[in-house]
Amino acid sequence: MTYSAIDLIETKRDGGVLSSDAIGWLIAAYTDGSVADYQMSAMAMAILLNGMNNEELAAWTEAMLHSGEVMDFSDIAAAKIDKHSTGGVGDKISIPLVPMVAACGVLIPMISGRGLGHTGGTLDKLESIPGFTTSLDAYRFRTLLIEHGLVLAGASETMVPADRKLYALRDTTGTVPSIPLIASSIMSKKLAEGLDGLLLDVKTGSGASIKKLDQSRELAHTMVGIGAVHGVNTVAFITTMDQPLGHEVGNANEIRESIDVLRGHGPADVTELTMVFGETMLELAGIEGGRDRLDEAIQSGAALQKFIEVVEAHGGDPLVIDDPSLLAVAPREAVVVAPDSGYVTRCDALTIGTVATHLGAGRERKEDTIDPGVGITLKAKHGDTVHQGDPLAIVHYSDESKWEAQRGTLETAWSISDELTRSQDLIIERIDASAL
Amino acid sequence: MTYSAIDLIETKRDGGVLSSDAIGWLIAAYTDGSVADYQMSAMAMAILLNGMNNEELAAWTEAMLHSGEVMDFSDIAAAKIDKHSTGGVGDKISIPLVPMVAACGVLIPMISGRGLGHTGGTLDKLESIPGFTTSLDAYRFRTLLIEHGLVLAGASETMVPADRKLYALRDTTGTVPSIPLIASSIMSKKLAEGLDGLLLDVKTGSGASIKKLDQSRELAHTMVGIGAVHGVNTVAFITTMDQPLGHEVGNANEIRESIDVLRGHGPADVTELTMVFGETMLELAGIEGGRDRLDEAIQSGAALQKFIEVVEAHGGDPLVIDDPSLLAVAPREAVVVAPDSGYVTRCDALTIGTVATHLGAGRERKEDTIDPGVGITLKAKHGDTVHQGDPLAIVHYSDESKWEAQRGTLETAWSISDELTRSQDLIIERIDASAL
Repeated sequence: MTYSAIDLIETKRDGGVLSSDAIGWLIAAYTDGSVADYQMSAMAMAILLNGMNNEELAAWTEAMLHSGEVMDFSDIAAAKIDKHSTGGVGDKISIPLVPMVAACGVLIPMISGRGLGHTGGTLDKLESIPGFTTSLDAYRFRTLLIEHGLVLAGASETMVPADRKLYALRDTTGTVPSIPLIASSIMSKKLAEGLDGLLLDVKTGSGASIKKLDQSRELAHTMVGIGAVHGVNTVAFITTMDQPLGHEVGNANEIRESIDVLRGHGPADVTELTMVFGETMLELAGIEGGRDRLDEAIQSGAALQKFIEVVEAHGGDPLVIDDPSLLAVAPREAVVVAPDSGYVTRCDALTIGTVATHLGAGRERKEDTIDPGVGITLKAKHGDTVHQGDPLAIVHYSDESKWEAQRGTLETAWSISDELTRSQDLIIERIDASAL
Repeated sequence: MTYSAIDLIETKRDGGVLSSDAIGWLIAAYTDGSVADYQMSAMAMAILLNGMNNEELAAWTEAMLHSGEVMDFSDIAAAKIDKHSTGGVGDKISIPLVPMVAACGVLIPMISGRGLGHTGGTLDKLESIPGFTTSLDAYRFRTLLIEHGLVLAGASETMVPADRKLYALRDTTGTVPSIPLIASSIMSKKLAEGLDGLLLDVKTGSGASIKKLDQSRELAHTMVGIGAVHGVNTVAFITTMDQPLGHEVGNANEIRESIDVLRGHGPADVTELTMVFGETMLELAGIEGGRDRLDEAIQSGAALQKFIEVVEAHGGDPLVIDDPSLLAVAPREAVVVAPDSGYVTRCDALTIGTVATHLGAGRERKEDTIDPGVGITLKAKHGDTVHQGDPLAIVHYSDESKWEAQRGTLETAWSISDELTRSQDLIIERIDASAL
C-alpha cells in the first residue's frame, strides 16, 4: 500500500500510532529517496517528542533491518554472539573481550563504529595498528568468521542503508536523543549480523551519550525487548561512565592497554568489565564454566594468540602486538599536575574525552582524520591520593596550539578534596529478557 | 553572532527559549540556504509541539519581515490600511470591501494569496477578469497606490522570501497548524506592506483552516499582539465559516456576487461582513462616520466606479464589471435537489469548497491551472425551507468525469430536518489591542 508522508507525519505529530505497514512504507520510501530528508527530520522530531509504542518500535526496527543486506550464518553450527557498547571514554572493552571469548569457541561477527563526539570508536582504535583494515566485503567477512571465529569490521554500504541515512540526518537535526530511534538504530545493525545472542553495554553518567540512569535503563529495556521480538537472546548491563575506563584514552594507547588485559595485567576496571561480559557472552552461547575458561585463555596465551591471528587476518602488523612500543606515540608530551594534595573525588570522562577529541584522537567534523598517537594517560582517578605537584595525566599531542587551547579545560577534569567520596559501582544493573 | 542550527533545534526541542539574536541568525541563514530544509523542518516540528513565547514570536516575525524588501509609504500622508482573511469558502469579502473603503479616501496596498486546499484565493478570483494582472514590480505597485488608492497584487519574489520558503516546507512536512508559525507568516507579509492599520478576519468552523473556536481566538490574539509590537493598529474579528459566505463559490461567479454587493444588492451575510469590516478599516484610518460614508459610496456609485478604475489599472477589462454576464461560465450545468422537505440545518463549507476545488475552481497540485468558469451557486442555506425536489445548488463544470466523481460528495453537504436549528452568529468576537 502507498501512503502519504505528510499524513504519517501528522499522525505522529498528533500523538497517534503508525501501523506496521505504514512504517514499512516510510522506511523503504526514505531509503529510495521518495520521502525527502526534510520530511524524515520532521518525523524524527515528532517521534522524539511523542514517542513510539512497542508495536511501532518493532516495525520500525524490522523495516530498518530489511532496508539492505542481512547476513545469514544459520548454516554455521557454532553460536554467533556479539557485543555492543553505547560508547564511553577509554571504552576499549571490545578489543580484549572478543579475542578472549573467540578463544573459547564462540563466533563473533562484530561490526563496529567510529568515534562519535567525545567518545572513541573501536574501528578507529583498531586502525592505529599499522595495516589493519576494517573494510570487508560479505565474502571476506564470512571467510574470516569461519577461519578465525572473529571478525572486526565496519558496516558495508549495503547493510542497513536506512540507518546510515537516518543516522546522518539525526546528527544534524537535533534528533539524536530519542530512545526508540537510538534503540532501533543499534538493534537493526546488530540484528543484520545474523546473531544468536547479544550483549549490550549501556553506559550512564557524564561521559555517556545518555547521562541519566533512568533513561539508560529505559534504553536497555527497549533494546532487550527488540532482541526478544527478533529471537536474539539479549542481555544488557548498565555500567558507569563518570570517569574514563582504565588509564588510557586515545587510539594507539588504548590498543596498548587492551594488550595488557590480554596478558593478564590490565587495570582493574577494564579487567572486571571484560571478564563479566566474557562470562555472559559464553553463557549466551550455552557454554558453562565461563570464568574458568576465560582465565585459562589468558593464562595459556590463547586469547592473545587469537588477537594476533585476527590482526594478521585483517592485514595488520602482528609485531606491534608482541611489542606495543612500536605503536604510534605523538611527538610532544605534557604533564598535568595536582594543584593541591588530597583525595581525587572526580576525574571527568566528558572533559577528558572532549579534550582528547580536540587534540586529534577523535573527529570534530566527519572529514577529519584521526591522529593515532594522540592520547591521555591518566595517573590519578577517583579514590586515589595525590600530593600537590603529582602528575594527574600525561598528554601526548602533535599540535602545540591545539594543546594550548585545551590545557586549561583538561585541568578542570579533576576535583581534589580532603574527604574521600564513595564512587559509583562500575556495574549498576543487569537486564535480560526475564525483566520484560 | 553565529549560531549552530543543531544547538538551536535542541534548545527548542527541550522546551527552551531562543534569543532574538539567535532567531535573527536562523531566519537569515535559512533564507540564504546555509541552514538546510531538513534542519528547518525539524525546528518547525519542535515549534509546533513546544510553542514560542511572545518575545520569540516577535523576533521570528521581525526576522521574517526583514528577510527581503519592506515597503515604505511613510512619505504618503494618507492612512494605509489592509485586510487579511485566514481563508474560507465563498469568502470574496475583500473584493467588494476594498474599493468601497478606498472610495472613502483610505489607501490600501493589498497583497493577496492564491487558493489553498479547499479555500479560494483573492488573486485567483481577480484573474477571472480577462486581462487582470496581479504581478507588479515595486515601482508599479507604488504608482497604482498613489494614483488609485488601491492595489490588488500578489507578493513579489523579493518580499518576505523566508516565508515563501518556509511556507512551502511546512506544507509538505505536517507543520502547518502551529499558531506561532501561522501568525508570523501572515503578519510578516502584512507588516512588509508598510501599513498604519490592519483588519484580520479569523475564520472558525468546518470550512476554516482552523476549525476550533479556542484556537481561532488564540491565533487572533497572537496576531493582534504582533501588530501592537510593530506599531500597527490591528483589529481581529472571529467569524463563522460553517457554511459558504453568500451564494456563490468559484472564481468568476464570486466576482459577479462581489459586483452585486458594490451595487447595493449583495446577499445579507456578505454585505454585513463587508460593512462591518469597512467601518472598522475607516475607524483604523481615523475617519469618523464610517457607516454613512460607506452607504454613500454604494448609493453614489463611487465604490463601483473605484473598482472599475482599479480593474482597468491592473490591465483588466472594465466592461465585464458593467456587464458581469461577460465573465466566464463553465459549459455544463447540473442541479442538486433536496431529497426531502424541511428546514436546511447544515450547508457544509468544507464539502462544498472541496468539491469546487476538485471540479477546477482550485488547485490540487501547485502546478494545476484554475478553470475560472467552474462554480457552485447555492440555492438553499442554513435556515431555509425546502420542498423535496427543490434545487439546493446549481453547478457549472467543464469535465463530466470529474463531476460524476464529485456529485455524491456534494449531495452530502446539506442536512434537512423537521426542526429548525439556530445558526451560529456570523461575527463571533472582535479582538483589538485593548484585549492584550
